[in-house]
Amino acid sequence: MSTTDLIALAAALCLLVAPLSLAGLALMNAGFARSRAAAHAVLSALVATASAAIGFLVLGCAFFGAPSHHITVHGTPWGIIGSAHTFLRGVDFHSLNASLTAGFLLFAAALVAVIPLGTGTDRWRFYPMALSSALVAALPFAIFAHWIWGGGWLSQLGAIDAGGSSAIAAVGGLSALSITWLLGPRQGKYDDGGMALPGHNMVMVLFGCLLTLAGWIGLTATSALLFGSATPAAIPLIAANTLFGASAGLLATLWVTRSRYGKADASLCANGFLAGMVAVGASCHIIVPVEAAAIGLAIGVVLPFSVECLDRLGFDDPSGAITVFGLGGLWGTFAAGAVAQGHPAQWLVQLAVISALLGMVLPLTHLVHLLVNRFSPQRVSGDGEQTGMDMHELGAGAYPELQQVMKDQFHR
Amino acid sequence: MSTTDLIALAAALCLLVAPLSLAGLALMNAGFARSRAAAHAVLSALVATASAAIGFLVLGCAFFGAPSHHITVHGTPWGIIGSAHTFLRGVDFHSLNASLTAGFLLFAAALVAVIPLGTGTDRWRFYPMALSSALVAALPFAIFAHWIWGGGWLSQLGAIDAGGSSAIAAVGGLSALSITWLLGPRQGKYDDGGMALPGHNMVMVLFGCLLTLAGWIGLTATSALLFGSATPAAIPLIAANTLFGASAGLLATLWVTRSRYGKADASLCANGFLAGMVAVGASCHIIVPVEAAAIGLAIGVVLPFSVECLDRLGFDDPSGAITVFGLGGLWGTFAAGAVAQGHPAQWLVQLAVISALLGMVLPLTHLVHLLVNRFSPQRVSGDGEQTGMDMHELGAGAYPELQQVMKDQFHR
Amino acid sequence: MSTTDLIALAAALCLLVAPLSLAGLALMNAGFARSRAAAHAVLSALVATASAAIGFLVLGCAFFGAPSHHITVHGTPWGIIGSAHTFLRGVDFHSLNASLTAGFLLFAAALVAVIPLGTGTDRWRFYPMALSSALVAALPFAIFAHWIWGGGWLSQLGAIDAGGSSAIAAVGGLSALSITWLLGPRQGKYDDGGMALPGHNMVMVLFGCLLTLAGWIGLTATSALLFGSATPAAIPLIAANTLFGASAGLLATLWVTRSRYGKADASLCANGFLAGMVAVGASCHIIVPVEAAAIGLAIGVVLPFSVECLDRLGFDDPSGAITVFGLGGLWGTFAAGAVAQGHPAQWLVQLAVISALLGMVLPLTHLVHLLVNRFSPQRVSGDGEQTGMDMHELGAGAYPELQQVMKDQFHR
Repeated sequence: MSTTDLIALAAALCLLVAPLSLAGLALMNAGFARSRAAAHAVLSALVATASAAIGFLVLGCAFFGAPSHHITVHGTPWGIIGSAHTFLRGVDFHSLNASLTAGFLLFAAALVAVIPLGTGTDRWRFYPMALSSALVAALPFAIFAHWIWGGGWLSQLGAIDAGGSSAIAAVGGLSALSITWLLGPRQGKYDDGGMALPGHNMVMVLFGCLLTLAGWIGLTATSALLFGSATPAAIPLIAANTLFGASAGLLATLWVTRSRYGKADASLCANGFLAGMVAVGASCHIIVPVEAAAIGLAIGVVLPFSVECLDRLGFDDPSGAITVFGLGGLWGTFAAGAVAQGHPAQWLVQLAVISALLGMVLPLTHLVHLLVNRFSPQRVSGDGEQTGMDMHELGAGAYPELQQVMKDQFHR
Repeated sequence: MSTTDLIALAAALCLLVAPLSLAGLALMNAGFARSRAAAHAVLSALVATASAAIGFLVLGCAFFGAPSHHITVHGTPWGIIGSAHTFLRGVDFHSLNASLTAGFLLFAAALVAVIPLGTGTDRWRFYPMALSSALVAALPFAIFAHWIWGGGWLSQLGAIDAGGSSAIAAVGGLSALSITWLLGPRQGKYDDGGMALPGHNMVMVLFGCLLTLAGWIGLTATSALLFGSATPAAIPLIAANTLFGASAGLLATLWVTRSRYGKADASLCANGFLAGMVAVGASCHIIVPVEAAAIGLAIGVVLPFSVECLDRLGFDDPSGAITVFGLGGLWGTFAAGAVAQGHPAQWLVQLAVISALLGMVLPLTHLVHLLVNRFSPQRVSGDGEQTGMDMHELGAGAYPELQQVMKDQFHR
Repeated sequence: MSTTDLIALAAALCLLVAPLSLAGLALMNAGFARSRAAAHAVLSALVATASAAIGFLVLGCAFFGAPSHHITVHGTPWGIIGSAHTFLRGVDFHSLNASLTAGFLLFAAALVAVIPLGTGTDRWRFYPMALSSALVAALPFAIFAHWIWGGGWLSQLGAIDAGGSSAIAAVGGLSALSITWLLGPRQGKYDDGGMALPGHNMVMVLFGCLLTLAGWIGLTATSALLFGSATPAAIPLIAANTLFGASAGLLATLWVTRSRYGKADASLCANGFLAGMVAVGASCHIIVPVEAAAIGLAIGVVLPFSVECLDRLGFDDPSGAITVFGLGGLWGTFAAGAVAQGHPAQWLVQLAVISALLGMVLPLTHLVHLLVNRFSPQRVSGDGEQTGMDMHELGAGAYPELQQVMKDQFHR
């Protein structure tokens, strides 16, 4: 077996733990939801995963894969969209490298679909969500992945994103921004000054963090081996850096929330942990642990302010995904330019990545959400929201025995 | 290191995520149970795992392993049972391949034991369950695994089951069928028309699906590398196919339940997801994603009808394991024959596998359950069931603080 | 790629599932806590992980790594403490072996920090805990790891601890002993005869066991490949032995508790499962499954008595970590000497390991806890404990909606 094959084999084995991120995020979303929408939150994650996988299969793989359609500017052809076969028909499944790229992107697309669910919790309808998930996987995600990982213009510029800070986290986080803009805040959210609707289960949220971390290490390692020219020797470093980013993010948020509110805030701490983890992704294989901690620390300090600020601006984001994955991903993308030992203008290239995310991926994603909204309204009816998504869309609560008790209380 | 060794090493590393399936199924079983039997459900999974492991160690490994005892029919010797050493004494643990086979079968046996627990939930006693689990691992599971994976008559016929659709899922699902037949329905199940006893925690059920998927990919990949002549290049394909099977199963069930009941049914959707995942197992390394989706789609469409039908026939199956693993596994076994590029009569061979499961494994498993039942009744007493398995068999509830609240309610 | 590199690569891939142990233990700790401290329990696990990682980064890596400072006794120089660079600056991250050692020890240090959290549940303050975690990772853990894995005096003597029974489990378990000594029992614990404060969620505890097992197999395999001269051929054996140790431990505890109390005790059974798993660690790669079962069986039989005995002596240990990881780890360390096929006096060497743990690691750890206690009291105030750690330290409960219901009950 050749060394190339061995690297691909190592990457394939790293991919096996990546689904834990899906499970962890699904559980966190449920914890951030209210109990009357908890089953809906996890089922949404299953459906989003399935829809994104199908969306990538049907169309996304074509927009991702080689060869590129080019636009020629000043004599240089820049790849702007892939033109491979649909339905993954072009993939040679006997080649580990080709099939691994396809397999990895499927799980990445699923993550991109699951990230915004926490933001839309308690009010995002099932069926438009499924359609949006499929279309986001097929269009903005696949196209941006082509740009940065598939030989498109950003990779031609030499952009760095080994671990998915831009192509997974930021794309998902911007989708979260778009959907909360479109959905508007939950009922009662701004009735008495904001911050009034805590998630129903903090154990799910915090335990979900640890599962997500376990999966994220695998995801990031696969990605760095596939797209970051990392060697298998970098796997422990990637694990350590991811841990250090998350740790520094957590401790920074802990310190900030304690200073500001007098007490540590569990849900912001969970967010700080994830944001640090996300931010080190882009450069995970080229930085040393101290740099990883610094990158995590920075986003951990900023996070509580960003969450508060978005909240005040009326972006109701129960899970904090806009800040965690959106801002965390953008920061990680930028930081990769600052720490990279490549050409000195690397951070300019990274700014181009950020511009592409904000100027092209965000509008395209928003367009997708708007388009779906025309055919099937994204937001549940006022009555349905009052009843709770579980009863309204699934006809049964997540905790039937418990809800019996609670109903008895409310009707006393 | 030789290529053979490398393949075995890859398989061993895939095996490391397989225990997640045990954890996922245990949690699903708890979610499908009522709150008064939730701790019992997970402890049962631990005990079943332990018993099956011991059962396979003591006797099963002997019935699985080479050399075969043969029956000669028309001059051809057909392997019908293994005759290796008991207590895994014959295994050369310095050989990766030999020790990997033993290690894989241990976890497979544990899964076979955990699958029917969801079906027997709320009424299956602990001690006979432990005995049954050990005996099923030692007899029907080990013998059938010998037939299809250990050089026995089914593998001599050229039967295909790379990922355990028959030897793990169907054997477990048929054991579930047998035990609910023997146990009978839960108290109150058919009092007002059936479908009256929802599980107590749908978040556990749905989150458990995602964990089970993560583990199942590892399990299936190990199995395909060990017994399906797959190469490591197939690992991402196996992951993708498993995801597509599950996704198509989920979306199909979602669509059917929405059409029939007006709303999506969360617990059937969870079942559809797992059934699709199970069904692609047998052929996971030789099909392309579109075929995987088709296999999952078919079982996802059929599943709600099968669950309803079994329910009407009086088979009370809270977790749906009979359909998910039994029918899903049989369908996957058959489908492997239809899509295989081998000799055209492959589907006849696959029918032989199905016949062996229904005609030999099911009766033998039922005999085991009946035999244990003579010495130690499988079903809890009526009083015990009323009290709940947690209090009755463990002397304490799963949620002591919550039950205090609920008791206050009921005794008002 | 050389064989050495391949072994290191296999170990790195095993490490990827190890974080599941952190997640599993965090969830178990939450389950063993009361509902008013459940979020605190999991957030403590996140903070302990982060602090231990930082502590090992800043100082621990220096005390672990080569070259050793020596003390010369009768002409032989014995390594007593490492003197590598701080901040992991000395590690060549291009070398898989060096970076893997660093990465593994980070996760091991995190586990050592998470283990005692279950013992201190419901009363251990956040901030001193974070400081203690960092210092234990930097001092007793790093120094002992140097002794047994880093070329120090215990490894010079030929001590065996392939899977962390001593360096991870026992160090963590002894830290648990020290902290409960210092903290004292929970309020109301000994009001009516002990054993009066059950954990609030047994599903979390039992499900957590299965996750911990999944992670522990990876942890143990990494460790055996790194420090136990195991070859990748041993990975399935390590998985099987870990499963057998846990299984035998569980079944033994089940049998003992049923005999003594009339009914199986779920929380002790969970402990028996983990203790068996822990105990086989030290010798996991050199024993056969029957020996693994015997090692697990022994600790499973002893465990209920040890837990009861500690309880009577006033060591309030809600999660049982002192027995599970402390006694389980020590027993595993000793048992490795009994079964090792090396020089006959191996068990004397193993007794030296145990002496070092009890005579040096325990006092040093206690000193750390005492020192931190001087600056920031480890135990929460009486009022805070009454209120619950969640409200007191985080300002919000883990289950806001549920607590609303419960409050209504209590104030009727």
